[in-house]
Amino acid sequence: MANDIADTFAAARMGGTAFIVSLGGEILEIGGGKSLTRLPYAAHLVGDPDTGVVHGGVITAMLDQSCGIAVASALKELMPFATLDLRIDYMKPATPHADIFVEAECLKVTHEVAFTRGIAYQASRDEPIALSTGTFMLIRADRGT
Amino acid sequence: MANDIADTFAAARMGGTAFIVSLGGEILEIGGGKSLTRLPYAAHLVGDPDTGVVHGGVITAMLDQSCGIAVASALKELMPFATLDLRIDYMKPATPHADIFVEAECLKVTHEVAFTRGIAYQASRDEPIALSTGTFMLIRADRGT
Amino acid sequence: MANDIADTFAAARMGGTAFIVSLGGEILEIGGGKSLTRLPYAAHLVGDPDTGVVHGGVITAMLDQSCGIAVASALKELMPFATLDLRIDYMKPATPHADIFVEAECLKVTHEVAFTRGIAYQASRDEPIALSTGTFMLIRADRGT
Amino acid sequence: MANDIADTFAAARMGGTAFIVSLGGEILEIGGGKSLTRLPYAAHLVGDPDTGVVHGGVITAMLDQSCGIAVASALKELMPFATLDLRIDYMKPATPHADIFVEAECLKVTHEVAFTRGIAYQASRDEPIALSTGTFMLIRADRGT
Repeated sequence: MANDIADTFAAARMGGTAFIVSLGGEILEIGGGKSLTRLPYAAHLVGDPDTGVVHGGVITAMLDQSCGIAVASALKELMPFATLDLRIDYMKPATPHADIFVEAECLKVTHEVAFTRGIAYQASRDEPIALSTGTFMLIRADRGT
Repeated sequence: MANDIADTFAAARMGGTAFIVSLGGEILEIGGGKSLTRLPYAAHLVGDPDTGVVHGGVITAMLDQSCGIAVASALKELMPFATLDLRIDYMKPATPHADIFVEAECLKVTHEVAFTRGIAYQASRDEPIALSTGTFMLIRADRGT
Repeated sequence: MANDIADTFAAARMGGTAFIVSLGGEILEIGGGKSLTRLPYAAHLVGDPDTGVVHGGVITAMLDQSCGIAVASALKELMPFATLDLRIDYMKPATPHADIFVEAECLKVTHEVAFTRGIAYQASRDEPIALSTGTFMLIRADRGT
Repeated sequence: MANDIADTFAAARMGGTAFIVSLGGEILEIGGGKSLTRLPYAAHLVGDPDTGVVHGGVITAMLDQSCGIAVASALKELMPFATLDLRIDYMKPATPHADIFVEAECLKVTHEVAFTRGIAYQASRDEPIALSTGTFMLIRADRGT
């Protein structure tokens, strides 16, 4: 269930950036500090031509982006933010020719930072492809310089 | 200074994968557990249309890939490997319309794992855009099942 | 619900090491790839003498150790393992004079690696002090040298 | 080469906290965003009683603390700060009965965050025991609430 801020942010971030558009990702659900996104399989995302497995960097980009969307939906007021750092654990290769789903959650928002976790999977959430843990820096108008 | 294994691996990984080809990255130097790669600025890599800044996921993918190339150049025999986990610290946004360079180093190779560090920068190595720390899993033929 | 391997491992790791004994941690639950441990507040664990807040390194050690216990309880056969890498997110300072609990989970075991997540909290699991994500290297007898 | 702020901070953090005092760490050098610290071997730091190897949590605590000291020495004005997140890579077990050295560096300070890297070693810096990458949150007086 989305709020307006989340919608605006999400549209601005997932829908409107050249790189994510070029990946082909789309938002399925957003709201309350959580998001669910989907990335359809596509030939230009392949990292290993022998196996057809999607490049790890693509999954990382989707996890990063999806966590950002979760942060947007957790904020009470509109403000810019940026990924500060991110850890990705690659648990198994993605199966070729299948959609990739990413569930992301914003666990906490402080004055400066938002904490997030994400999980990428295909057939079942119980068999993740990759996990992410990351912090985002909030850029508030009231900060000093 | 490259060796043949490194060259083969590097060509297979940086040059031959659809995703990295689609990013536009190229290898400048490789050998002795180190690599230097370059990513020219391109419109489809943009993450923020207002500023033209390249998407963080692109930089992550280049860091991941470049560290893999460094691992390849550190191995004494040819074997497959995969990113196990990766941490990225985003230190500042990339400047639009400028090349991004990635220097990567394989610090140590054990029987199962290779340890790496990478740095992405533009004008100067002393003003990094992003840092990476990551481990790669080596897939040896002699491992049990 | 514990198994014998888990019990043996857990006793060997949480109960038998000088450092963890010196911290004062104890295992409350173990089994099925999960663990719950407790660290009572103690003066020698303090990191900030002005506030009485426990040192971050103490919480990290408990998260590391608890994830190791979860790995032990997930293994089907007894084998040594070691922390390969670990990320800790510090979400808020621990409240002085209160117990710290750590819940840890082993998400997946492959031939070489176990993936884990942990959470440290006090009054409520919904208000974590710190999160961890870490990989452990399994040291199998059949590996080459 | 130390400055007064660094000295004050360092004394407050390395010298004055119960936990670090209980570990036995000491500062050898500090200044210009860098620090070198030393941890003498001691029985109560042991993590594996069979081998006498120091517990990983001890090394993590030293890396965390040493990076904090490097941050203190990089700051132009005195202010409190706290570890936001930390990644540790364990490259090999520490050799028993030998000192552990930690070299830490603050790579960059922004308005809100300081970026750090550390390395723990014994006989030679070229054979690290562990690496760290971590961010610290600066707590400025001018921040909003």
